[in-house]
Amino acid sequence: MSTIQNERILLASRPKGVPTAENFTIDQQPLEDAKEGQLQIQTLYISVDPYMRGRMSEAKSYAASYALNEPVSGGSIGKVLQSNDSRYQEGDIVVGGWGWQRYAVVDADTCRKVDPELAPISTAVGVLGMPGLTAYFGTLRIGNPQPGETLVVSGAGGAVGMLVGQIGKIKGCRVVGISGSEEKNRYLLDELGFDAVINYKDEKPVREALEEACPDGVDIYFDNVGGEISDAVIDLLNTNARIPLCGQISLYNNEKPDIGPRIQPTLLKRTVLLKGFLVGDYAADAAEGLKEMGSWVKEGKLKYRENVIEGFENTPQAFIGLFSGENLGKQLVKVTD
Amino acid sequence: MSTIQNERILLASRPKGVPTAENFTIDQQPLEDAKEGQLQIQTLYISVDPYMRGRMSEAKSYAASYALNEPVSGGSIGKVLQSNDSRYQEGDIVVGGWGWQRYAVVDADTCRKVDPELAPISTAVGVLGMPGLTAYFGTLRIGNPQPGETLVVSGAGGAVGMLVGQIGKIKGCRVVGISGSEEKNRYLLDELGFDAVINYKDEKPVREALEEACPDGVDIYFDNVGGEISDAVIDLLNTNARIPLCGQISLYNNEKPDIGPRIQPTLLKRTVLLKGFLVGDYAADAAEGLKEMGSWVKEGKLKYRENVIEGFENTPQAFIGLFSGENLGKQLVKVTD
Repeated sequence: MSTIQNERILLASRPKGVPTAENFTIDQQPLEDAKEGQLQIQTLYISVDPYMRGRMSEAKSYAASYALNEPVSGGSIGKVLQSNDSRYQEGDIVVGGWGWQRYAVVDADTCRKVDPELAPISTAVGVLGMPGLTAYFGTLRIGNPQPGETLVVSGAGGAVGMLVGQIGKIKGCRVVGISGSEEKNRYLLDELGFDAVINYKDEKPVREALEEACPDGVDIYFDNVGGEISDAVIDLLNTNARIPLCGQISLYNNEKPDIGPRIQPTLLKRTVLLKGFLVGDYAADAAEGLKEMGSWVKEGKLKYRENVIEGFENTPQAFIGLFSGENLGKQLVKVTD
Repeated sequence: MSTIQNERILLASRPKGVPTAENFTIDQQPLEDAKEGQLQIQTLYISVDPYMRGRMSEAKSYAASYALNEPVSGGSIGKVLQSNDSRYQEGDIVVGGWGWQRYAVVDADTCRKVDPELAPISTAVGVLGMPGLTAYFGTLRIGNPQPGETLVVSGAGGAVGMLVGQIGKIKGCRVVGISGSEEKNRYLLDELGFDAVINYKDEKPVREALEEACPDGVDIYFDNVGGEISDAVIDLLNTNARIPLCGQISLYNNEKPDIGPRIQPTLLKRTVLLKGFLVGDYAADAAEGLKEMGSWVKEGKLKYRENVIEGFENTPQAFIGLFSGENLGKQLVKVTD
């Protein structure tokens, strides 16, 4: 047994509405050694992602609910301290799902090696990780973008959204981003080459702004947010439009099911395809996706942005910040150098 | 010029809510001769279909709005009186889109020959026509039914719905039909081999009846009706379920957009595919579909039912009857023998 004390952030209670610091607690445990086939890891970065909110509820969802009084799981990046698996050695950088812990002992099979020469290691939970592949497969496999088409993405300033828009540009689309901040929108326009941006907090109704930004209607709507923003976009869909349904962040913290105009009549009249998806649906093609995303990053066609918060103990605050709509790009926590 | 007087039923005004007899009027016109490449036809059967309600409105839809004071167009079957096209001769039976007229002169290219030896000619607007192909492509191409899966179809006693259920049975699914009449449900259970039926007019809530009828959840929901019935089915969808979105008859006569629970959170969590579709989307494969449907009819695997109303002048009433939920099977009008 090593003498290291591990710190873990546990889900203490299920959030009602927006999560608060009180929903989480920290404990300490002696760190175990790596058994056969296992790795002992020191965490360097922790990823916080909107989908985690769903797992904090008990409701039936695509991923199992988090257990109370257990560490919150999710993507993390770490350095191997001890390896009991022939494929890894001490000092290797790996990404896995051990979540909100300073250290972890995990089965080597649940990890993937990260090449620090290829890109900064933090990208393994960003552009070259789950959010990157989510943008990649959702946009390409469901959105199927064609040159000259109009792609609208909501949550455009988030980790997934800003990649979706850039992939749309690579494929020759007119790209329109919707976010809730002028700073984000400026970045999308000036740095990422979006064709138009809409601030949903502006006085002008989203529907009106969309009509100006999408004179030829909307062919692809990559939906990260749901709610009234999506209602407005769906109104403008063209015949044979596609909706990669990726997130509904505007609704995650609702206590009751939300009511809105029924979308089926429009989806029927315009013969629209809508597909809810998870990055895991495309696990078999992940290596191919990472390769192409990596080459786009290298060629400068795909830029990414990280919002790094320092300090393990600030992980809950970093997570809670996802729901204020203020973070630009991929939100992550730097635990140690 | 022939001496025949043609009678035509025109759209006199756009319906508000459920269509009434006052929305239609009859005129008379001398029948013209067939010019080069044309056929002069006497109508034998007229098809009335729910989608026509959409075309009577001015709203943007998949098909152009009907013009006022013009004959209502749609599927009709007729006998060739004069042919000016080498592929057709007098006496041939054809199906085309000339609609609510006793006679018509049409381009031969817009017609398809019907083989009276293969099946009763009325099937050319039913099981071996538009409704049949709608059921075929929606169920197979979007629904993608697998043995042991549960398929739920709403509007199950209608022209499309009863074929959907039977195709589901051919593919080895548990099939549950929802309709609004005991007579229809009895027929679906006793004659067509549905596994369970639900009468949405029963006292028992549809949701509760569905839970009993679908102990393993719902894998395919073929939606003909929309509204609260669809809300209940969507609640019970399994992971990776599919929704061929074919009709929304419960909403067609609404004057205002309908409000209901947002479906995107469920479609996201269960990674559902929803596709609005039109039979025309599969036009390239229509011959293949007709061949397989024809062989199923011949083998007795696929039964069909027609609700035939006699008399050209009763066409508007036959159409209006579609919205009372009382008609069993394909609704059509017999104009003459």
